[in-house]
Amino acid sequence: MADYQVPLKDMNFLLYDVFNADKLWQSLPTLAERVDRDTAEAILQGCAKIAEQEIAPLSRNGDETGVTFDAGNVTTAPGYKEAFKTYAEGGWTSLGGDPDFGGMGMPKMLTAFHEEMLCSADISFSLYPGLTAGAGLSLAKHGSEALKTRYLTRMYAGDWAASMCLTEAHAGTDLGMIRTKAVPQADDSYLVSGTKIFITAGEHDLTENIVHLVLAKLPDAPDGPRGISLFLVPKFHVNDDETIGEQNNVSCGSIEHKMGIHASATCVMNFDGAKGYLVGELNKGLACMFTMMNFERIGVGIQGLGAAERSYQNALEYAKDRIQGRSLSGVKSPDAQADSLLVHGDVRRMLLNMKALNEGSRALSTYVAMQLDIATYGTGEEQAKADQLVALMTPIAKAFFTDLGFESTVAGQQVFGGHGYVREWGQEQLVRDTRISQIYEGTNGIQAMDLLARKVAGSKGKLVLVFLEEVRAYIQESKNEAMQEFIQPLANATDELADLTEHLLLAAQTSPEELGCAANDYLHVFGYTAMAFVWAKMAEVSLAANDDKSFHESKVRTARYYFSRLLPRCQSLITSAKSGQSALFDIDEELF
Amino acid sequence: MADYQVPLKDMNFLLYDVFNADKLWQSLPTLAERVDRDTAEAILQGCAKIAEQEIAPLSRNGDETGVTFDAGNVTTAPGYKEAFKTYAEGGWTSLGGDPDFGGMGMPKMLTAFHEEMLCSADISFSLYPGLTAGAGLSLAKHGSEALKTRYLTRMYAGDWAASMCLTEAHAGTDLGMIRTKAVPQADDSYLVSGTKIFITAGEHDLTENIVHLVLAKLPDAPDGPRGISLFLVPKFHVNDDETIGEQNNVSCGSIEHKMGIHASATCVMNFDGAKGYLVGELNKGLACMFTMMNFERIGVGIQGLGAAERSYQNALEYAKDRIQGRSLSGVKSPDAQADSLLVHGDVRRMLLNMKALNEGSRALSTYVAMQLDIATYGTGEEQAKADQLVALMTPIAKAFFTDLGFESTVAGQQVFGGHGYVREWGQEQLVRDTRISQIYEGTNGIQAMDLLARKVAGSKGKLVLVFLEEVRAYIQESKNEAMQEFIQPLANATDELADLTEHLLLAAQTSPEELGCAANDYLHVFGYTAMAFVWAKMAEVSLAANDDKSFHESKVRTARYYFSRLLPRCQSLITSAKSGQSALFDIDEELF
Repeated sequence: MADYQVPLKDMNFLLYDVFNADKLWQSLPTLAERVDRDTAEAILQGCAKIAEQEIAPLSRNGDETGVTFDAGNVTTAPGYKEAFKTYAEGGWTSLGGDPDFGGMGMPKMLTAFHEEMLCSADISFSLYPGLTAGAGLSLAKHGSEALKTRYLTRMYAGDWAASMCLTEAHAGTDLGMIRTKAVPQADDSYLVSGTKIFITAGEHDLTENIVHLVLAKLPDAPDGPRGISLFLVPKFHVNDDETIGEQNNVSCGSIEHKMGIHASATCVMNFDGAKGYLVGELNKGLACMFTMMNFERIGVGIQGLGAAERSYQNALEYAKDRIQGRSLSGVKSPDAQADSLLVHGDVRRMLLNMKALNEGSRALSTYVAMQLDIATYGTGEEQAKADQLVALMTPIAKAFFTDLGFESTVAGQQVFGGHGYVREWGQEQLVRDTRISQIYEGTNGIQAMDLLARKVAGSKGKLVLVFLEEVRAYIQESKNEAMQEFIQPLANATDELADLTEHLLLAAQTSPEELGCAANDYLHVFGYTAMAFVWAKMAEVSLAANDDKSFHESKVRTARYYFSRLLPRCQSLITSAKSGQSALFDIDEELF
Repeated sequence: MADYQVPLKDMNFLLYDVFNADKLWQSLPTLAERVDRDTAEAILQGCAKIAEQEIAPLSRNGDETGVTFDAGNVTTAPGYKEAFKTYAEGGWTSLGGDPDFGGMGMPKMLTAFHEEMLCSADISFSLYPGLTAGAGLSLAKHGSEALKTRYLTRMYAGDWAASMCLTEAHAGTDLGMIRTKAVPQADDSYLVSGTKIFITAGEHDLTENIVHLVLAKLPDAPDGPRGISLFLVPKFHVNDDETIGEQNNVSCGSIEHKMGIHASATCVMNFDGAKGYLVGELNKGLACMFTMMNFERIGVGIQGLGAAERSYQNALEYAKDRIQGRSLSGVKSPDAQADSLLVHGDVRRMLLNMKALNEGSRALSTYVAMQLDIATYGTGEEQAKADQLVALMTPIAKAFFTDLGFESTVAGQQVFGGHGYVREWGQEQLVRDTRISQIYEGTNGIQAMDLLARKVAGSKGKLVLVFLEEVRAYIQESKNEAMQEFIQPLANATDELADLTEHLLLAAQTSPEELGCAANDYLHVFGYTAMAFVWAKMAEVSLAANDDKSFHESKVRTARYYFSRLLPRCQSLITSAKSGQSALFDIDEELF
């Protein structure tokens, strides 16, 4: 496998040339105190170094060795413990954390790149700090001062890790059905009992303690999702002097054997009257969990991008080195026995699909991260608008980037031919590791329903208008002749998205099933259209640039590829989405 | 995992109701002697029994255990040896073989279903008899009487297996570069030396001997593909009394560790002056290998279908059993805590995609198998036409069915949610096992080039006309009002395929690269259009049927689903294919 090289130039291009992050940070008082361009560049460089040099080398062996389970204990793959120590000592566990409790408080625009680097290096490794950071967001927002002082500070310090315990065997998507119980005690604590499955990082040997955030119901709680509360359940009790005490009544019953992310421990967690502490209000547990969902779902989307970037780098190196066959337009390397794979149109197609989708995903995730930062740190109308865009774009970021990430890892594997199927090359691991990102943190089908039914239909289309207005304003302003090759198709795509939205909202008045039947197509149409928007923005910057000619030429040509070959995917999706629910629902269950 | 159930009803529907196989067999004298409907039904039932009861149960454990390698010896997974014995004793190794040497000489229309059943049951297992059958075709066509008497009879009997040794480390797609040498000896034999990689079933413990068909070059052979000859190299010499003699100088150096098909041995084979015998003419080795390619490539396509059928059966069972969430149009199971997954439009979409693509692939593969049978056993114009259709449709069958097969295994996995990612459910194995079918036996990119550059452009479009004429004649004859919902879109799709063909042939006159850039899109447009043709044929039969109401209603509704949701995929593909080579070739190598 090629050595992983962080695409720092592309990241800086997005931050400063396309989205003017430095100006944005200056304009938001909280962020202005914390970060400027110099700090940000130093952070990304530092992170690139640890991702390339410490984490990426663990991935192959981590896949082969995996985690091992023995009598409730989980041992991580060789090198993980040392790498996690280095990572924590570098302060990376606190990057996005609340500064009041020891976090660095960096904006999502930076932490998103940090996440991408980690996922390109090794998705399995990334999940340990990733889950801790996610739980940290929920705790920072909803935990009491006492809980935050005791636990959050240690999570940011990298002393302790965290897990999020939601799923039960019979309740995955439908969390309203969970059975885990929490019984109130006289000392304001709760005794939590139940079994959770699919708990990423539920048990491991990287840290001396693990902080579980657990969804459970009080004995007298209302039925369904409105009866769910959130509890902090530490693996080890913490003494009043902050030293580690006895083990709590929580244990790992087993680990799953999975298709990929072998070095990530996926645990069955048994809570047998484990002592826990309420986080947030009673019966508001789902809302507390969903606090971090917008951050986390984009993070999972970025897993797809991270693997896809690695896939592209590997496949490109292979395609340049491997000679096989001759160019259709005449021999290109007369002194060699064959031409390189790069002379073949179909190989170029696979590589350019990856390149255009990866750079587009990176740009779009940066755009969404920017909206998250404005929603978090901004004020007034701008903040309100950003909040709406975040709500709208989050399910797209999660599902679209992971679907494309999977496509790109499969395409990279195809470039390798037979070698892509053999484990030692590492390419097939990317396919296996990425596949889960389409499933967990809400399956991509659930994301599509969240987008179309909850966000779009739920707002009667208003959220979509917020996005359409921004894109249309951009189109209006783009009078530059050279840009019309991008602006015209972007305008068409935008109109078609608006039309599709209207069509589906109307159809849903007759049958609500229309939404479920069209949701997946709709999400992808939205994704490709939003990606066209950011590709146009990138092309605009690169067309005007005078420096670094080859970087900008590559950008413009990749933008052209996107508009010729990828944006047209909307046509079929729109036809399918508009074809209606009858083809799906006029067939009885027994006819399947 | 659900128990595998062979879709016998669908197979018989295709044979007798849609394609009138019994009448075809009667009309072809050679086949009329060998097979009628009763025989065929008995064969499929017998094969279904062994696939369901003997082979399918091996698959999960075969994946976990894999094959083991020790000092040149390969041990197959538990149960394989016994199952292969049962399989051989049942006569299944001779099913498609030449009757002059002990084969049953069954038509491809039957052996294709046999292949599907084996692949649904366990792709790894299917490869051992599959490779032997493939090598048998080549040997039957090109081997001398002596070689056939000595080796082919024993292969048909299931005493010995076979492998095909083509690929070398530096020569995969580009076989012209192979370096394996064959030096002529005084006794008309050759000493073969070289190393082959990726040799499926190159070594194993299922049979007492293995017959390798090896591509090699004579010392004075012309450069490139015109200097390649084919040799039969037995693992063990065979004495004049037909007993097994000494081991030949051929050995397995190692086996590959792969993403999937763990129970299939993928071997590095070392030939160190191994005694071999020429098959066919000197320097015509590639042609001898390609004899069986049309049969084999359809067979690999059917691997995709086999896995996809299994995926559908598993996912459907899971979707019916699993309750999660409520229907958008109101609660469907008020007594349960939630509705079944089947109430959700997006789950129906995934299941119906699988159902429509699988039944469509099965119908199209039956159509192609029928053309192969007419090409093999027919005469005159019909035979000539069938020969052309086989040449045209073979790359489509291989690439289209495997791309769709992969899509369907991934979709099935998605229906399972998190459980689809966990090994014990068997669903993720289908994804891993199927992935290779898009790569081996000529990558799908190579198939696309074979179709567009070699078959379509190579015939100046004439081969396409043979197909278009058949479809247009069918459209002309279909005056039935009820059929127009299928006939109209089929007619449009056919016109668009014709137009795309013309467009690309013209564009290629300016730049030959147009073919490479459009090949993948073109193959898929062709595939969806051809599948629309067979879906229309199936719908026609089912609309007219009076018996088995639910089977035929399911067919018609699935046909509607295909035309509403899947055929429209052509729109985007056509736009992409027509967008031209410049987006791919105006970007210099260093800009990737």
